[in-house]
Amino acid sequence: MQLSPPQTLEVIAGMIKADFIGDPTSIVSGISEIHRVQKGDLTFVDHPKYYRKALESAASTIIINQKMVSHNGKALIFSDDPFRDFVTLVKHFRPFRQSQAMISPSASIGEGTVIQPGSFVGNHVSIGKNCLIHANVSIYDHSVIGDHVIIHSGAIIGADAFYFKRRPGHLDKLESCGGVVIEDHVEIGANTTIDKGVSGNTVIGAGSKLDNLIQIGHDTIVGKNCLFAAQVGVAGCVNIEDDVILWGQVGVQKDLCIGKGAVVLGQSGVSKSLRGNMTYFGSPVQPAREKMKELAFLKNLPKIIKRLSS
Amino acid sequence: MQLSPPQTLEVIAGMIKADFIGDPTSIVSGISEIHRVQKGDLTFVDHPKYYRKALESAASTIIINQKMVSHNGKALIFSDDPFRDFVTLVKHFRPFRQSQAMISPSASIGEGTVIQPGSFVGNHVSIGKNCLIHANVSIYDHSVIGDHVIIHSGAIIGADAFYFKRRPGHLDKLESCGGVVIEDHVEIGANTTIDKGVSGNTVIGAGSKLDNLIQIGHDTIVGKNCLFAAQVGVAGCVNIEDDVILWGQVGVQKDLCIGKGAVVLGQSGVSKSLRGNMTYFGSPVQPAREKMKELAFLKNLPKIIKRLSS
Amino acid sequence: MQLSPPQTLEVIAGMIKADFIGDPTSIVSGISEIHRVQKGDLTFVDHPKYYRKALESAASTIIINQKMVSHNGKALIFSDDPFRDFVTLVKHFRPFRQSQAMISPSASIGEGTVIQPGSFVGNHVSIGKNCLIHANVSIYDHSVIGDHVIIHSGAIIGADAFYFKRRPGHLDKLESCGGVVIEDHVEIGANTTIDKGVSGNTVIGAGSKLDNLIQIGHDTIVGKNCLFAAQVGVAGCVNIEDDVILWGQVGVQKDLCIGKGAVVLGQSGVSKSLRGNMTYFGSPVQPAREKMKELAFLKNLPKIIKRLSS
Repeated sequence: MQLSPPQTLEVIAGMIKADFIGDPTSIVSGISEIHRVQKGDLTFVDHPKYYRKALESAASTIIINQKMVSHNGKALIFSDDPFRDFVTLVKHFRPFRQSQAMISPSASIGEGTVIQPGSFVGNHVSIGKNCLIHANVSIYDHSVIGDHVIIHSGAIIGADAFYFKRRPGHLDKLESCGGVVIEDHVEIGANTTIDKGVSGNTVIGAGSKLDNLIQIGHDTIVGKNCLFAAQVGVAGCVNIEDDVILWGQVGVQKDLCIGKGAVVLGQSGVSKSLRGNMTYFGSPVQPAREKMKELAFLKNLPKIIKRLSS
Repeated sequence: MQLSPPQTLEVIAGMIKADFIGDPTSIVSGISEIHRVQKGDLTFVDHPKYYRKALESAASTIIINQKMVSHNGKALIFSDDPFRDFVTLVKHFRPFRQSQAMISPSASIGEGTVIQPGSFVGNHVSIGKNCLIHANVSIYDHSVIGDHVIIHSGAIIGADAFYFKRRPGHLDKLESCGGVVIEDHVEIGANTTIDKGVSGNTVIGAGSKLDNLIQIGHDTIVGKNCLFAAQVGVAGCVNIEDDVILWGQVGVQKDLCIGKGAVVLGQSGVSKSLRGNMTYFGSPVQPAREKMKELAFLKNLPKIIKRLSS
Repeated sequence: MQLSPPQTLEVIAGMIKADFIGDPTSIVSGISEIHRVQKGDLTFVDHPKYYRKALESAASTIIINQKMVSHNGKALIFSDDPFRDFVTLVKHFRPFRQSQAMISPSASIGEGTVIQPGSFVGNHVSIGKNCLIHANVSIYDHSVIGDHVIIHSGAIIGADAFYFKRRPGHLDKLESCGGVVIEDHVEIGANTTIDKGVSGNTVIGAGSKLDNLIQIGHDTIVGKNCLFAAQVGVAGCVNIEDDVILWGQVGVQKDLCIGKGAVVLGQSGVSKSLRGNMTYFGSPVQPAREKMKELAFLKNLPKIIKRLSS
């Protein structure tokens, strides 16, 4: 999330009452979870395993739970609980605003766009031209929807990322300040859910078509002209390139990539990155040809074993 | 979809500015995609692989991308892009109509039927007697619902068929002009989605009970007194006979048939037609007894191999 | 369900015009399906297989389709169709009440709780303090929601149990009179559905977090601080202890138990009870380590067989 106006390091550190090293007047221009960080951003790290990743990231300012000297010229804010302090900042800069109306007066709706009854359009949502939003759709604050988009009834755009930290005795929520971007000519099926990014955007690329009851996790990027059949589930931080086809009930784990033109057959479980332009099947997934061979082999196996045993 | 009033061949061809052979005054009484065609209908075909199927179907008029002499007395309309021209006709005869009200004044609601707050009932929807439509249900235009039907919150009846044609650089949508028919004494679970037919009807047979979060694809016919547990997904053009039981998260591929009284155990993937009165399991599905034997065999296999190796 | 005021045996038997044995002035203080019965309750049994279970349960009054002498001092009501008569009583004591408003005047909403537009809150619903109910949520009558609960758009709380009895030629519905209890600090994802209990409560324990498009069946008890990823499906009458993690698209069959701290990997099918503090995978599920070993073994098998065959 970009901060407008940007803030100084001193002001940010003051909000969470933390010591810091670095130029107090240096600028914090955005707030980002480590997956999506860019120059000027503040991020956080609270586990030694990820210190190096944070310190070598593009972030300009890091909330960290380890006193250390500066590194790569980055500003460091010292906190006994960086997760908590990051959430405090997110809540400050992206507070929840109650809506009084089904369509927020702060939403921008393009010419020729039809919004059917019962649909909710949150604050600062932008919808392009010639879209059709069917009845009882819910679009959370700050979502951005292109032109010629069709969203079917019951679809939910921009619900919170499912991202929790286990604490002794409870789970702590990472408040998300990202959004959802739905590009032109996308169609979203009935009761499909697309979560907002933690700090960046979840993106559905131009021309992609999603069927009903699909789940798209936070920060996932779907390319152009993809086809996802009903009940597909894609976890967070997945990168799906153009022209990918996922058949019904496919599940895709987080943090991986599916190459351009890949086809994944129904009910498959994608647990690793897949090269493009191939067909896959199985849970866990394999190249479909290999899986089919395996299934045929298993079918024959009792006979083979009998022969070997005699 | 039936045309009322019916049109002449000449008028239809004129709408898409196409040449034709056949009696210009012959009647086009309906518009149908090839799966559901009947006498009097216009259909389209755009791939040589399906020419024969179209030419030998019940259709009276065919939009085709190949000049040829007439066949079986059918009228032929010549088009460089039958898909596009078919969509043009569907859009003309079944245009989208924006709704201003949650319950369209053109909807017909039977005596004793209760519609809870937040539910959307589209244009020309017909709902029978003594139904209970819970809160926040969405029923698209032209859906037909029988008597004593219960629809739980968030269910979506009649969203568009998921049917696209891949073009260079984009996906083209087949506009659907079919509907959904829900017969008497059906119960539809919360957030379940039932898509409309492409040109005919998707049907849920009398007395069938569908649990929550189920997907039923376009043109699928579900028989009487079926029981589908939560999160079942049925693709398009499936024919499910009476008394079929599908347990949770079962997936069913398109264009197949499940026989009367078949039972499919949880998470199974149905990739071929199934005979009735048997129990099935697995992905891909097998008779359950066979699958159980296979699983037991696999469990024993390491020991068998060890014995054979020694 | 508790009856308030409690009724006498004589009055209850009179409502269903049935003979009985027992003290006519004895008290029926509640109505319960056999899974959740306690002292003072009336329950029903209609299959000899379950007579003993009913007669030895805590129930004080039993509707039964077999004349017999009294047992354990229980009152017995004789019926040719106990299921039908039980449903008659449920409908009498827990009749469906149409709602006129999106938020029922009989609902109780705690201080600091925000309900976004388009959400439905049924009769006698209780929502605690500082909750956030997003747009287009549906909460059925009598649901109880604690403090600091977040419910995302499209979630459905308290739809009917999916519980039918097969009769010749149709399916008969067990009307449910139970509820849903969502404890403090729970988060419920978009389009997730949680069914009410048949006669007791479906419970989501304090601090648990459910992602989108999840199904929780009737009478299921989820412990504290559980994490369920998107598209998980849990059947009815499941007991899930604290700190359990279910990854995406996991399915859990009815009437079983998952021990504290168990982790079930994505797309697994849980068909038996699982001990706590272990990780599981597969459909049907196994300990993950065992399953991984099996998968590796299968991968090697063609080579092993080749070696054995030569």
